Parts: sequence; structure tokens; C-alpha cells
Amino acid sequence: MELLRLGPIGHEIPVVRDNDVYYDLRPLTTDITPEFFADDGIGRVRTALDEGSLVPLEGAEDLRIGAPVARPSAVVCVGMNYAAHAREAGAEPPAAPVVFFKMPSTIAGPYDALELPPYATKADWEVELGLVIGSRAFRVASAEDAYSHVAGYMLANDLSERRFQIEESGGQWSKGKNLPGFTPLGPWIRPAAEVDPGSLRLRSWVNGDVRQDSSTRDLIFDVGQIIYLLSQTMPFEPGDVILTGTPQGVAMSGKFPYLAADDVVEMEIESLGRHRQAVTVTQ
Amino acid sequence: MELLRLGPIGHEIPVVRDNDVYYDLRPLTTDITPEFFADDGIGRVRTALDEGSLVPLEGAEDLRIGAPVARPSAVVCVGMNYAAHAREAGAEPPAAPVVFFKMPSTIAGPYDALELPPYATKADWEVELGLVIGSRAFRVASAEDAYSHVAGYMLANDLSERRFQIEESGGQWSKGKNLPGFTPLGPWIRPAAEVDPGSLRLRSWVNGDVRQDSSTRDLIFDVGQIIYLLSQTMPFEPGDVILTGTPQGVAMSGKFPYLAADDVVEMEIESLGRHRQAVTVTQ
Repeated sequence: MELLRLGPIGHEIPVVRDNDVYYDLRPLTTDITPEFFADDGIGRVRTALDEGSLVPLEGAEDLRIGAPVARPSAVVCVGMNYAAHAREAGAEPPAAPVVFFKMPSTIAGPYDALELPPYATKADWEVELGLVIGSRAFRVASAEDAYSHVAGYMLANDLSERRFQIEESGGQWSKGKNLPGFTPLGPWIRPAAEVDPGSLRLRSWVNGDVRQDSSTRDLIFDVGQIIYLLSQTMPFEPGDVILTGTPQGVAMSGKFPYLAADDVVEMEIESLGRHRQAVTVTQ
Repeated sequence: MELLRLGPIGHEIPVVRDNDVYYDLRPLTTDITPEFFADDGIGRVRTALDEGSLVPLEGAEDLRIGAPVARPSAVVCVGMNYAAHAREAGAEPPAAPVVFFKMPSTIAGPYDALELPPYATKADWEVELGLVIGSRAFRVASAEDAYSHVAGYMLANDLSERRFQIEESGGQWSKGKNLPGFTPLGPWIRPAAEVDPGSLRLRSWVNGDVRQDSSTRDLIFDVGQIIYLLSQTMPFEPGDVILTGTPQGVAMSGKFPYLAADDVVEMEIESLGRHRQAVTVTQ
């Protein structure tokens, strides 16, 4: 099954797609929120599907696709988590997960336009495996145990503006990660039970030309290790989003130009769908 | 007036104190949330006080004091924003605001116990002027205009664990800023109209001995500059919290020991009240 939020910005409705049929989840939940995950929302959706108690949603294909989670309390990102990307950024692979944050207010739908201010001249794409936490995770006992805290997985673009991230940041990356719309998520969340997060091909393109093409097999810290290690220092709550890092092939490498007006960014992770963001530059 | 949230953890009720009388705000709002600030909550409280339509809250002094804002969507922190603190941390004063994040789930009340895990051996205090955003701020036109986006001010302890912040972080500070309870806020929010944020004495003590004693006059980037400059790269939403940085006198300086079991941290900012956190170490 795939969990989605469909409709205009700020008015998305919760939906599940199962065997290509869209069902309205409003009888079960007002939205796909942290409270939904805390209250075993995925289990309740599964039960409702099995019982046949959900009603198909007419016209679902015509609705805008929003981000598949509303109002997480935090978006925690792991940096430099693919060795080849660390090298292209001029860094050594880290000895422990490196963490920065995105503001939940920067979350966007997977097909929303990306509006850059004119001074954001070093905007860069990053395809990433994202996950949603399903139960509180603090001081998790092992990397194996950590997987029980994952509700599901999704595709994420961890957009970055490298001047604000690196050149004018005093070294703290979060500053360049938070322009409006810089965290497209979706199109759907697939429940953890249906995903092998350790072996997913992830790719990105700009204007149809491939930029990134790698696999989560190349993660330095895999999903279990990320949650296990970070949970020693930070409490994850249901609905929190973790982005696991991006592989090589970004503009910061010097091999490709940064994003400019009329560029189109696309990305895909197998079984987790596609993104497409058209870039505009506002004044 | 002072805005407070009183009651057990997770069950705080919204309260305003005016001329030392506590009034129940539940006829006006369910809680002091981002939505409260977005909907001119402070203006509505002022009107209700002027009209005499609020009812005093019996027994308010006996209730636990919670953090004065519930569920902000982000806690954005400015680092190295006092020159003498930058020097004690071994850094030059920054040319632009340096930003890191705290998870909203780490927010605690100003008198809640601070429970450290046994491996958090470099926990450190930081007294800071905090503020709450009252209206969306993105690409604010000037430092002067920025003040119109501030709803109010409060006292904050930006607790830090220096090993996770610096030694095992790959240089990204947020990792050492997010142990549970690491963001005590309060006891109250004072509306911006009642505060001169540019001239406030701020102090901290450990076990009764003074550690920090400075003034917001020594901020490198003042409140207006912080919001103006950061709003070029990040959209602030109503209810978002900004912590403006700490002055010299923390344990990281090497002059004082890190926090240990049975220590008591106290801090105060004039007109914004006091904190007191007793340290325990859990297994």
C-alpha cells in the first residue's frame, strides 16, 4: 500500500492506494500526521483494507500530490553518508553520522514548482531515501532493534543552497537547507514492512540528463545504524522525518551547473516513486 | 503581561499573569500554540484584559510551570553571537549569523529536572534570550522591519553536550544540542511591546556560583539583524522560536566543570524570570 496526501496546498486529504485503487482515509484520520503514526495508523489502514471498509476516492488522479506527511516535529538529515559524495564534496567519509536539520515549514509536494529567490545562485539537488518514525526512539539498544521504530519510507529531495550552506554559514550547514520548498517529499510513504531499505536504486536527472545513479547499498551508515546511533543523542518522536544522505552527482562536485530558471529536476527511488520540480526564479 | 502554560507535562493550560493576578486563557485559546500567535493571540489577550472578561485561575501558584509555547515548528539557534564567548570556544566572531537547530521535542519547563544519560559527560549550560515569531518572516526588508515579526521574548537554556556537539559531530553542532529536556524555556513570554531586547542583563549560576553575567548589548547580531539576515535564507512561521546565542562563562571554556549529578543550574534575564534545573544522571 502507499499512503498519500492529495489536494491543494494546506487542504490535502489522506489517501491510501492499494493495488492501484485510491481510497479515502478520512473515516480513519483527519490527516497523515505524527498522531496518525503514533496511533498505529498504518496498522489501522491495513485492517480497514483487509475488511473492505474503505471507499474509493473519485478523481484521485486529478488531484495535486502533497507531501505524504503533515507537520512532522523535526526533519533530521544525515550528511556525507555516501563515500563517493563525501569525496566530491572534498571531505573524508565520517566516523559517525553527521547531522543537520531542515525546518518542517520547507516541506513541499513532489511536483510543486521550486521558486528560488534571485540571490540563490547555488541551488543543488540531492536525491535521498527518507523515512518516517513510527514510535518514540531514544537510546535504542541496537541497529537491528532500530528498524522496529520505522513506520515507512519515501523519496526526498534535500535541496541545498551551497553559498548559504558552506560559504556564509560559519560551517553549519542547516542555514543553506531551508529556503521555502526546499524539502519535497513523496509522492507516497510505503510501509516499512514492504521495503528493503538496504538495496534501493536512487537516481536524479536535471533536464533529462542523469546526475545521480546509486544504491542505498552504498550508505556508510544504513537506516538501522542511523537510528541506533542518533537515538543515543536525540529523541525521535512518531512522525519525525529522517533523510539518510545523498550519493555522488550533485552540482557542488563542479561537474554540473547549479539550478537555474526553467531547469527541471527529476528523481526516483525504486518502489518509492518519482519527483519533478520545475525551477522558477522570483524577484 | 506574562503568558504562561501551567500544569502537568502534556496537560498545561494557557494562562496570562497581569499585575500579579493569574487569569485562565481557555475561553480564548486551547493552548499557546503557533496558531495562537498567528491569530493575534497576544492582541486578543490584551483586549480581554482591558475588557475585564477573564476569570482569575485559583491555585495557579501551586501548578508546575511548563514551557510557555507548545509545539513550535522549529527552534532555530544562533551560535557564537557574543564575541567573548566565541573567543572562549576558540573561534573568531562570525561574519554572518551561524545557525543550528534544536528539536521541538527537547523543550522542557523552566523548573523540570534535567535527566542526563550516563555517557553525557560534557553537558553545558547556555543562558540565552529567546523569542517567538508572531507573523511569517521571509525576505524581511530590514533589521528595523524585523522587530514587527516578534510576538514576545523569553528566557532559554540552550543546553549542549560538547562531545556530541563538537568531538563526534563531524563539525555540525545540532547533534549535541538535542538530548531530552535540553531546551528549557520560560517561565513566561513577555510581549515584544513590553521588552527592550537590546539591553537585558542575563546571568547563570551553577550551585549558586555565578557562571555568566553579560548583557544583550554585547550581541554581535542583535534581534533585528538575526531575523533580517536569516529570513533571506529561511522562512519563519508564527510560533517558531529563535534562541539568540549565549555569552561567555560556559564549561567549554575550561574554567568550570561540566554538569554532573546533583548540580543545580539557575539562570535569569531581567523582566523574563528565572530557571532552575536540578541535574540527575540516569542509567
